[in-house]
Amino acid sequence: MTKNQENTVPKLRVHHLTLSVDGYAAGPRQRLEAPFGDGIDGLHDWMFAAMRDRANGRTGVDVDRLDLGEENIGATIMGRNMFGPVRGPWQDETWTGWWGDTPPYRHPVFVHTHHQRAALSMEGGTTFHFTDEPIETVLQRAFEAAAGKDVRIGGGPATIRQYLRAGLVDQLHLVIAPILVGRGERLFDGMGDALDGYRVVEQISSAAATHISLARR
Amino acid sequence: MTKNQENTVPKLRVHHLTLSVDGYAAGPRQRLEAPFGDGIDGLHDWMFAAMRDRANGRTGVDVDRLDLGEENIGATIMGRNMFGPVRGPWQDETWTGWWGDTPPYRHPVFVHTHHQRAALSMEGGTTFHFTDEPIETVLQRAFEAAAGKDVRIGGGPATIRQYLRAGLVDQLHLVIAPILVGRGERLFDGMGDALDGYRVVEQISSAAATHISLARR
Repeated sequence: MTKNQENTVPKLRVHHLTLSVDGYAAGPRQRLEAPFGDGIDGLHDWMFAAMRDRANGRTGVDVDRLDLGEENIGATIMGRNMFGPVRGPWQDETWTGWWGDTPPYRHPVFVHTHHQRAALSMEGGTTFHFTDEPIETVLQRAFEAAAGKDVRIGGGPATIRQYLRAGLVDQLHLVIAPILVGRGERLFDGMGDALDGYRVVEQISSAAATHISLARR
Repeated sequence: MTKNQENTVPKLRVHHLTLSVDGYAAGPRQRLEAPFGDGIDGLHDWMFAAMRDRANGRTGVDVDRLDLGEENIGATIMGRNMFGPVRGPWQDETWTGWWGDTPPYRHPVFVHTHHQRAALSMEGGTTFHFTDEPIETVLQRAFEAAAGKDVRIGGGPATIRQYLRAGLVDQLHLVIAPILVGRGERLFDGMGDALDGYRVVEQISSAAATHISLARR
């Protein structure tokens, strides 16, 4: 083996979960026309700018962190609100995610929902699996599906909080966007001792945002 | 006049109010032996390092921001907990602040407290005034005492929140320290629309901390 054992154990990772300066990951009233809720304009401006920069062949703090989030990921876990704005039972199965016909995942995606639905295979290799199993079971399935690669939690904040509280997250990359929101959904809410096992391993600012990375102690 | 009018109107400023990554300005159980409460070790490490650097003639992001907080300040406002750990009525007047015989302020300091006490003149030019007047009145007195210079709110978070909610703060410099706390007192709690009048004007990281500055729109 050329790498040490530590590096070869698949990890559960969170990337560029973006917060306002006052700590909100979403505003109130998340819905179809406003997936991140009200009053939170500009939250992901740094990401759109980084995507444009990358498309133009530029590098930098933001582009590098964006790239990191896509390296060595074999499966994704997300909450139901990240998959779509539908609440309660599925009225029909016409909603196939926010990402059009060819979602960018290109691997198995596990969607936490209390409402069962058949797996959905999309163009480009993405398959959405809908599950109401406990997070430990879903994570096990995701690691198996990832076949040796890492698993990423896409979001939203409630889903990340659940895995963080259970101590299942290995790496958490946060971004602080230069906006103030005043109300909404926090990532860090009532975490208590759940953060004791983590330390800050990087804090770096670009012109557009600040990146803060947590890892296990 | 060589400066425009805007620059000559005295301002109310907050400097290096330090938060953990999860948004806490203090841990639970603030008291004499732990002025910032429990579980928040390392919150001000960046500041102590910057003070040492400054004493050794070094400059840098942190030293520069520390210096900025001391420029052109003619009076300070603080909450009672920042003055001392005594709660309720003063038992006697032996407590004269956390700062020894020669506090670093060297100007009038207004301490919000419901419990009256005679003004306290210290060596080096600091006088502590104790007041239970409304914040607008205290601010007016502080501006008069500052005689054309700016006024700074020293802290703690509850006092800053009160002035922020009333829209009285002109500049707010935050620091994010690379620690996780899990519980305690937030700066930004239930701010709602009170932050609408502010924008982020700077976001910059050193090896030790991230500085985020807010100003009026």
